[in-house]
Amino acid sequence: MNWIDEGALYSQISLFLREDLGRGDITTQSIIARNTRARARFVAGENMIVAGLEAAEEVFLTLDSQQQLEAFVSDGEEVEAGKVIARMVGFADVLISAERVALNLLQRLSGIATLTHTYVNAVEGSGAQITDTRATAPGLRPLERYAVELGGGYNSRFGLDDGVVVTSNHVSILGSVAGAVKSAKEKLGYLHKVAVEVASENDVREAINAGADVVVIEDLSGKEFAQLAASARELSRTITIECGGKITPENVREYAAAGAQLIRVEALTNAAPAANISFQVQPF
Amino acid sequence: MNWIDEGALYSQISLFLREDLGRGDITTQSIIARNTRARARFVAGENMIVAGLEAAEEVFLTLDSQQQLEAFVSDGEEVEAGKVIARMVGFADVLISAERVALNLLQRLSGIATLTHTYVNAVEGSGAQITDTRATAPGLRPLERYAVELGGGYNSRFGLDDGVVVTSNHVSILGSVAGAVKSAKEKLGYLHKVAVEVASENDVREAINAGADVVVIEDLSGKEFAQLAASARELSRTITIECGGKITPENVREYAAAGAQLIRVEALTNAAPAANISFQVQPF
Amino acid sequence: MNWIDEGALYSQISLFLREDLGRGDITTQSIIARNTRARARFVAGENMIVAGLEAAEEVFLTLDSQQQLEAFVSDGEEVEAGKVIARMVGFADVLISAERVALNLLQRLSGIATLTHTYVNAVEGSGAQITDTRATAPGLRPLERYAVELGGGYNSRFGLDDGVVVTSNHVSILGSVAGAVKSAKEKLGYLHKVAVEVASENDVREAINAGADVVVIEDLSGKEFAQLAASARELSRTITIECGGKITPENVREYAAAGAQLIRVEALTNAAPAANISFQVQPF
Amino acid sequence: MNWIDEGALYSQISLFLREDLGRGDITTQSIIARNTRARARFVAGENMIVAGLEAAEEVFLTLDSQQQLEAFVSDGEEVEAGKVIARMVGFADVLISAERVALNLLQRLSGIATLTHTYVNAVEGSGAQITDTRATAPGLRPLERYAVELGGGYNSRFGLDDGVVVTSNHVSILGSVAGAVKSAKEKLGYLHKVAVEVASENDVREAINAGADVVVIEDLSGKEFAQLAASARELSRTITIECGGKITPENVREYAAAGAQLIRVEALTNAAPAANISFQVQPF
Amino acid sequence: MNWIDEGALYSQISLFLREDLGRGDITTQSIIARNTRARARFVAGENMIVAGLEAAEEVFLTLDSQQQLEAFVSDGEEVEAGKVIARMVGFADVLISAERVALNLLQRLSGIATLTHTYVNAVEGSGAQITDTRATAPGLRPLERYAVELGGGYNSRFGLDDGVVVTSNHVSILGSVAGAVKSAKEKLGYLHKVAVEVASENDVREAINAGADVVVIEDLSGKEFAQLAASARELSRTITIECGGKITPENVREYAAAGAQLIRVEALTNAAPAANISFQVQPF
Amino acid sequence: MNWIDEGALYSQISLFLREDLGRGDITTQSIIARNTRARARFVAGENMIVAGLEAAEEVFLTLDSQQQLEAFVSDGEEVEAGKVIARMVGFADVLISAERVALNLLQRLSGIATLTHTYVNAVEGSGAQITDTRATAPGLRPLERYAVELGGGYNSRFGLDDGVVVTSNHVSILGSVAGAVKSAKEKLGYLHKVAVEVASENDVREAINAGADVVVIEDLSGKEFAQLAASARELSRTITIECGGKITPENVREYAAAGAQLIRVEALTNAAPAANISFQVQPF
Repeated sequence: MNWIDEGALYSQISLFLREDLGRGDITTQSIIARNTRARARFVAGENMIVAGLEAAEEVFLTLDSQQQLEAFVSDGEEVEAGKVIARMVGFADVLISAERVALNLLQRLSGIATLTHTYVNAVEGSGAQITDTRATAPGLRPLERYAVELGGGYNSRFGLDDGVVVTSNHVSILGSVAGAVKSAKEKLGYLHKVAVEVASENDVREAINAGADVVVIEDLSGKEFAQLAASARELSRTITIECGGKITPENVREYAAAGAQLIRVEALTNAAPAANISFQVQPF
Repeated sequence: MNWIDEGALYSQISLFLREDLGRGDITTQSIIARNTRARARFVAGENMIVAGLEAAEEVFLTLDSQQQLEAFVSDGEEVEAGKVIARMVGFADVLISAERVALNLLQRLSGIATLTHTYVNAVEGSGAQITDTRATAPGLRPLERYAVELGGGYNSRFGLDDGVVVTSNHVSILGSVAGAVKSAKEKLGYLHKVAVEVASENDVREAINAGADVVVIEDLSGKEFAQLAASARELSRTITIECGGKITPENVREYAAAGAQLIRVEALTNAAPAANISFQVQPF
Repeated sequence: MNWIDEGALYSQISLFLREDLGRGDITTQSIIARNTRARARFVAGENMIVAGLEAAEEVFLTLDSQQQLEAFVSDGEEVEAGKVIARMVGFADVLISAERVALNLLQRLSGIATLTHTYVNAVEGSGAQITDTRATAPGLRPLERYAVELGGGYNSRFGLDDGVVVTSNHVSILGSVAGAVKSAKEKLGYLHKVAVEVASENDVREAINAGADVVVIEDLSGKEFAQLAASARELSRTITIECGGKITPENVREYAAAGAQLIRVEALTNAAPAANISFQVQPF
Repeated sequence: MNWIDEGALYSQISLFLREDLGRGDITTQSIIARNTRARARFVAGENMIVAGLEAAEEVFLTLDSQQQLEAFVSDGEEVEAGKVIARMVGFADVLISAERVALNLLQRLSGIATLTHTYVNAVEGSGAQITDTRATAPGLRPLERYAVELGGGYNSRFGLDDGVVVTSNHVSILGSVAGAVKSAKEKLGYLHKVAVEVASENDVREAINAGADVVVIEDLSGKEFAQLAASARELSRTITIECGGKITPENVREYAAAGAQLIRVEALTNAAPAANISFQVQPF
Repeated sequence: MNWIDEGALYSQISLFLREDLGRGDITTQSIIARNTRARARFVAGENMIVAGLEAAEEVFLTLDSQQQLEAFVSDGEEVEAGKVIARMVGFADVLISAERVALNLLQRLSGIATLTHTYVNAVEGSGAQITDTRATAPGLRPLERYAVELGGGYNSRFGLDDGVVVTSNHVSILGSVAGAVKSAKEKLGYLHKVAVEVASENDVREAINAGADVVVIEDLSGKEFAQLAASARELSRTITIECGGKITPENVREYAAAGAQLIRVEALTNAAPAANISFQVQPF
Repeated sequence: MNWIDEGALYSQISLFLREDLGRGDITTQSIIARNTRARARFVAGENMIVAGLEAAEEVFLTLDSQQQLEAFVSDGEEVEAGKVIARMVGFADVLISAERVALNLLQRLSGIATLTHTYVNAVEGSGAQITDTRATAPGLRPLERYAVELGGGYNSRFGLDDGVVVTSNHVSILGSVAGAVKSAKEKLGYLHKVAVEVASENDVREAINAGADVVVIEDLSGKEFAQLAASARELSRTITIECGGKITPENVREYAAAGAQLIRVEALTNAAPAANISFQVQPF
């Protein structure tokens, strides 16, 4: 994460804590004396790629700057069930009050990194890249993109302003692939490459003739994809071929084998179950 | 959602759009003329409980107040794959630029409602209530709680400030269930009930003797849970019995049958895959 | 004050300074050289309970972090007229520019603590608790509640979201005490106790039968209150009895003697005159 | 109030509601159906000058724009105990949830206007003006100044940036009245008049010789004040004479008679008890 | 301007008004009764391209929504000295209080558009494009870019995030043009074109061999530029040639003739004098 | 700059960086490793008064607090072309990413200080003061006023709230100079001096008779101004005479000689070309 994202992260974490704590953790305030020293540990409940330790640490520090976290693995490392990921020393009330927000981030990001890793393993050696999409939890995109990277995936464009992708909805309005691509090239081609969704051999031909740099093929079976990708490659040696749709860890290798250079997987960020991580607090 | 949540929702949606659009949707601006009228529809790609239509509509309206959405189902209704959920008329550029943020909310919330519904169906007739937890996507808790309700689940406390739950981490620091419950009763008992996590017959006895209103039993097998729940019921006819842990749609009925009145399911909000919904734009 | 309130306090103090300084203290800037060292002291002009020293110190620190305050008493201590409460060393311009905001907080909060103390003394030994209400200066509730505590009073619910109190206006709309209490019990009883305003023996009976945990009796004379409180106690040994209305330091003991366990006093926060405290700056 | 203050008021009222409602009025939400029509009225519980009706109305409108308030008196009018000040129609839940914040503003501002009126009456015919000071509740200064005006008082400078007043603390650092006044005149005299606190005949002479436009005499008895004021008037026919200190409704006329043209009264805003106003809701 | 910029503009204008009005326009409030109807007109004091009428109108509307502006020219039109650009009807106090902020925007943007137009005229027919740079007034970039467009210029990248330009400072750190270009191509080439500053024939060769899409030649005399541009064109028919440096209206045509396709002019936004426009208010 | 302006500056600089960096400096991130140490220097490209070094330094520190700037001149000093103004050590990526925003401030403010200095030199010895106006870049007024001061100019009122100036537009609505001045004196005269624009001998007479403290004469030729100023002086020895309009470095002395005590120059802040300063980064 760069400066911009870090700044945003810090201010977001305050909001996340406020969402969970509201006017304060009344239970903890009623039964635990302030300044009671305690220690705690994060334990992996299953095999996973760890992601979000820094964000989790920041949650505790935002609540009280005197908490200390010692990590035994780094973000992006693979751990087995039972592994103590990190331990903390600090105040009992702070550790307990911040626990849920920290876990929500750590479990969620580790879940995304772990699922990404599964896809990446499935295409190992094929040269294809697994990329994320814009199907992220609203408000959490920078963190989720970071988790995808830790799992071995690649980030596609951050948002609608930093990459040119002509979709089927654009083409539906414009009436033709060729027109859309030409228009985008003319207005944005000085600074940007142009990608375009295609669904038929005709689309592919139009796209390439109009100067598209990337063709995106969505929602085809592995076999259909293979055919269309082959046509595209025949027409242009330099065009980049990207695929998307219902890609699973089981079928992803088929698309890679059929010539997909980039494979977009929405599930990385919208269907990854949270990783099982527990947080155990103990007195000194 | 009440006034507070609505106000928060509106300001959040601006941030979500800003996250996705940044300095603007450069592709759309380069190829689609402003004020081009268009229509669009949301189509269910699988069976689901729909949740989030109002939020999705708000996304379009935030970008441009002249878009119109006509819903064919209400939030909370069940639909089958292929159903047109809603249709829109408006401007092509607005519909396309807002699409992703709207889908991210609608797919995610419908996924949560749908998974909740599965759990609720599984305990139908048992009298047990399926409740959400605080394991929500940071920043999205009000929306996710709303989706759980639409799926037939119940909301537990919103945050650490509006309910008293003594957890195992509290007990670990305090040293005894009895002490923690008594302390909470004394400080907060004038306004609040007191719930406490218990893991053994001894804990249950201490909790009930100290005046706890609810016992929470986590991470036991169905059989173990049944035993502990029976002990609790024997000691007190008025105590409320709640369970949590690795509850699945398959095993949830077992806990209900064993006397769980409330069943907390983290998966509702941290493991529900986004529902499959597409958005198709067409010219007039 | 907990973390949440502290964070809020810091940001509020900036706003308070901005309210008073606007574009700057033009008088001071025109006649006092920057970095002129000076000392100052806060002196009590009458007997009082001191409250708000930390907030006052924070005002100076917000303007310039190099000011130092040495307090001779702690928040909550009683002092006599003439007592030097604290002294400061710092820069003359900062001390003078921040003076008014610091005094506005310190005088106001000390006034509240002092008036609270008067009420608390008046019921000493009776077992009754003096509590604050929500009749606070808008925007200053956390600070004013803190001052009440320092004066020996108790805090009632912070706001409408953390306690259930059925008022006469609710009953007026619902049509009966019983219906309102039952409805609240059903929806909120899992986490919350239920309090209800009552005005007659019939109300008391309905409330207790419907399961209310607290009855609140407002605006009765001491004699009338005694009668109604006795009826309530007869009907239930566990019900909590609270009173409110035009309670003065002179008549408060009468209510305590008549069985009021909690006595709500709006005057604590909406009629306490500011305490007389002066701030004298001198050169080194 | 001008545009600036109005804008600030609107955003403040949202914060005031948020302070009181937090996550929502749980009692009302649990027992009153949304969209239940109701009516309500504000009733004066004692004689008073009414102040803050617009602000109170804004509280209801901020919560829900469909509430309607019909005022029977205008801000600044005098009413007797028992008078119905205004009536409202709207929704029961909105009326009840907004009640406390609306009353907190209306009672507080009416209290200030009423106390101001008492002082103004006491000096009637003398030509002296009663003015407010900067001893206001932090965050509420614009509203409190407005209430002083409604009570017949005058506003002194809003803050440290829009008027030049050399205080005894400035003089203490500078070492002389003359030096401070000269310095202020030189730097700010092109746009501003210069006022200065004086405590002795010598101070008065220095001030007038240095070109002060106003002398402020604080904390003297009526007799001492009369003497010093007379000296000032003797030295300059054009100097403005202002007094401050422990001015009460009983002794204020004495100062006016002794030549005070402006009389600063801190109590207007820091010791006015809230006016007694009730809010009664009824079904249609 | 798109939605994003419009939203930003509205919130900025509030800040601009607050900067100028502070606590209010005390002069106008003291001498002009509220709701005094008046009319006003903007008059060009010299020949110019008008830019910023919508922004100026927004200033008045932000202060009070009842002002009406009737424009006699559109943004981007050329007018001669003496021309009445627009007239307004509204309230005298609003017109006068908003005047300065409105003029500051309108004069400044018209100045930029007018200077841009001078450059554009100077290269008419050559095919070269005059582009803006990032040398804008901090906080005003969207408005200033808009003014450049109205003057006939082109916008270059908005900021550091939406275009890849390798500058001489990058090369100084990296040690070679080739390395920098290759690195940028590899990391960003999928979505972006790559531009690079070059200063010698060797640089040009390295840039083109490494795959640069654009070469930027800065701070050369016309003659030197012509030589280097010719070398670049010889090496690649598709490379885009851009120039920058001390380009004046007098020498700009020389660069265009020598093969500059894009000409970056910092002066457009950092040296354009404000256009002379007056605002005259009159009673009805 | 005082505390208020400093606080505002810091928050503004974050916004300025965000305006330029958006989602990050993608070029630099793609080619320069983080934590690469580098040094840089600011070099004057022409003779100038330097202004804005602190602001420029703050830009780098806001991005990363480890950058160090060593200035060889202070704000307000005159330097010749070629002079190294300051040097920096830090990280290459930070230095390059912050460069543009820092230069935009430093060049712009130095341009203003330099132009101001030219005017100040032109009236040297005459006793006349060159003052700024409210014709500043919206959002940058505090910085631009600071630059005027560094150039030897004087600041006039900050905004409409801290000085009373009756303009020709006020007079046009009111119908007479006398009425406007009297009204302002009555309402604001206790704290403020009153200035008024005059255009004829009659105006001058009315203004002085009504008690104006300053007359402002705009848009007259030097000769006409001399005549009107002489009339004003004849009528009052104490009135302050101010002039404005199309004042150039060439004709300004004429106005000073003719009795202008204050000379308002809009060009200082709305027509000063940015100073030529370069920023050169080098590896260690």
